[in-house]
Amino acid sequence: MTDHAKLITDMGHRARAAFAQVSQMSDARKAEALRAAATALRDRRQSILDANAADMSAGRERELSSAMLDRLMIDEDRLEAVARAVENIADLPDPVGQVIDRNTQPNGLVMERVRVPLGVIGIIYESRPNVTADAAALGLRSGNAVILRGGSEAIESNRAIHDAMQDGVMAAGLPGDAIQLVQTTDRAAVGAMLTASGLVDIIIPRGGKSLVARVQEEARVPVLAHLDGICHTYIGKHADQDKAIAIAVNAKMRRTGICGAMETLLIDQDYPAPGPLIRALIDAGCEIRGDDAVMELDPRTVAASDADWDTEYLETVLSVRMVEGVEDALQHIASHGSHHTDAVVTEDEAVADRFIRGADSAIVMHNASTQFADGGEFGLGAEIGISTGRLHARGPVALEGLTTYKWVVRGTGQIRP
Amino acid sequence: MTDHAKLITDMGHRARAAFAQVSQMSDARKAEALRAAATALRDRRQSILDANAADMSAGRERELSSAMLDRLMIDEDRLEAVARAVENIADLPDPVGQVIDRNTQPNGLVMERVRVPLGVIGIIYESRPNVTADAAALGLRSGNAVILRGGSEAIESNRAIHDAMQDGVMAAGLPGDAIQLVQTTDRAAVGAMLTASGLVDIIIPRGGKSLVARVQEEARVPVLAHLDGICHTYIGKHADQDKAIAIAVNAKMRRTGICGAMETLLIDQDYPAPGPLIRALIDAGCEIRGDDAVMELDPRTVAASDADWDTEYLETVLSVRMVEGVEDALQHIASHGSHHTDAVVTEDEAVADRFIRGADSAIVMHNASTQFADGGEFGLGAEIGISTGRLHARGPVALEGLTTYKWVVRGTGQIRP
Repeated sequence: MTDHAKLITDMGHRARAAFAQVSQMSDARKAEALRAAATALRDRRQSILDANAADMSAGRERELSSAMLDRLMIDEDRLEAVARAVENIADLPDPVGQVIDRNTQPNGLVMERVRVPLGVIGIIYESRPNVTADAAALGLRSGNAVILRGGSEAIESNRAIHDAMQDGVMAAGLPGDAIQLVQTTDRAAVGAMLTASGLVDIIIPRGGKSLVARVQEEARVPVLAHLDGICHTYIGKHADQDKAIAIAVNAKMRRTGICGAMETLLIDQDYPAPGPLIRALIDAGCEIRGDDAVMELDPRTVAASDADWDTEYLETVLSVRMVEGVEDALQHIASHGSHHTDAVVTEDEAVADRFIRGADSAIVMHNASTQFADGGEFGLGAEIGISTGRLHARGPVALEGLTTYKWVVRGTGQIRP
Repeated sequence: MTDHAKLITDMGHRARAAFAQVSQMSDARKAEALRAAATALRDRRQSILDANAADMSAGRERELSSAMLDRLMIDEDRLEAVARAVENIADLPDPVGQVIDRNTQPNGLVMERVRVPLGVIGIIYESRPNVTADAAALGLRSGNAVILRGGSEAIESNRAIHDAMQDGVMAAGLPGDAIQLVQTTDRAAVGAMLTASGLVDIIIPRGGKSLVARVQEEARVPVLAHLDGICHTYIGKHADQDKAIAIAVNAKMRRTGICGAMETLLIDQDYPAPGPLIRALIDAGCEIRGDDAVMELDPRTVAASDADWDTEYLETVLSVRMVEGVEDALQHIASHGSHHTDAVVTEDEAVADRFIRGADSAIVMHNASTQFADGGEFGLGAEIGISTGRLHARGPVALEGLTTYKWVVRGTGQIRP
């Protein structure tokens, strides 16, 4: 066994022992521990800001991009937001112990499905140090143990945040091993996490496509993630024209770098006003890469290549195609989509229903911007990520997605004939 | 790509195309197709019996055990039972389209989680040819496509059953590719199924421990299964003595070969009547392997070795230990259990509650025989298997476990601020 495998095995065993304790704890104790963690984050403000300054300085030396440095940076306001997010998670309802359903059999046995925590959750993430706090809080709130592995560029910040939260959790009487941070920045430790079957129950990668792709490729443990967010909006023949423009511009341009940003616009060939729609997007600063029919609408458009239909730009670029109706739109999405979020804009309920049933996406929207693809917007209070997988949890995943269930059978001495 | 990888890739693509169709079909059409499949099984009775006779004859030549030959054998009664089971599955409620929950956000967006079929399900099984019909029916009932891979000893029977069902399904207008059978008996085809990520969504192995272990080891696709059923019953200090005897004898002796059979009995040291309990088991024909305290109860007991606590006998053998209370019982189960089914017998509700919360098992029972661990007994109508994994579905898995959900967001033009 390599040193890294030993490290992760040891952390895994400690996490399982901590899981056995926190999985049994009451709602109130878990919430109290998170409030103590938030307090500790505030109390340790100076050491966290100092640690972050060291990361920022090393990042500048390593010539990280300004976008990366911005993701890495923590100031007083951001730290306060991190602490408040932990408190907000403490305020969320605890899913553990909920009875999902119950039936009574003719022999009198009562069968219940009861929510229980999932187990040991490995979270692998990149530069944002706030993920350390968020992921630890979501995991612990739902009675799980977490093993956190952040990016090397944020190691000092992550350590300082983790130290504070762990102290807070322990001060509240919970085992510190319920939230562990991998202290080495060696990438081999990630490999060890990905193959720790039996110790780690699920891996959640949070970061760019190359991180997620590596995790999905190497993992021998189940992975909850999305690789791409190639989100589509289909403008139907009977779309309201004002809604179409407002939704398309918002879906593409509000924030171009998020996974719910629209990347391809499909316009029905019978939609009466494609020109104003394209112009509105261009006027908002968007580059349009279109098929031949789209290019005829505005001289400022450019030709889309085959690769464009499969590209998640995460920029002010949009591919646009004319389609022959809802079936053609669904066919395009089936061929080029990533099962993340796809939307239809139409006032025709039959077309909306057909699209909703036919799009095999984690999230399907009618007359709304794909930028709503976010756990907070769904009323989940927070999210640990968005899953495009088909198993366990799909779309935005929050506390409930970090639980499973057990069957509880209540009898009075029944034996099976 | 090897020939087997090509074969499975081709089957996988056809299954995905069929899935795109059957996943959209109404309850009524799927039920009708299964009734047509059941009719076809009856119409093709003679060819199925002939095919089975060929398998039986080859099996005798290969000197299969009488138990294996019995599992392989189909007669008129068994074939009628197979057809009836398909009809029973047709009568079960269709989970697809159910709204799991719904909330309305302050901005008016309505968020719904709606059940949808899971996708392409690979089922790998051993000698029982009835699994061909059961698995195809459960998969199709819930809108999935299945790829079936049965044991080589049952290949002719499986082909005949599959041919009949596929014809029935196609006669009802559904794509035959929704239920495909791997026609080769080469084991390399199994390997190709286990690594068909992106084509196969989940693998369900049904068979002995070596099959399940191989599948869990090699699979790159999620697996839904249980490896062991080392089921425990803990007899508490305040157990009703009649219930204790009835439940223990039933849990061990009703059928010793099923995964829900009790393998270890834990008796509280303060339970007042351990002797009659042990005697009842021995009188029922059970060999008792005990710790020192148990061996003092009856001269017919033998000493348990360390390995006994980790053994799934599937025979008329039981390991028995005296424990120091419910915490000690839970500790033993945590160390030696397989997260399948564990039971407590007690009239003390506090002890029962502690056991129910503390046992990290897919199924936890109070005052009932572990032999009830079966989807039919749970009111699920049928089962595709029992899962001891923590993700997606746990315990007995039937139609709902073969579905996932999508989020449907219903708006009126909302854009994200």
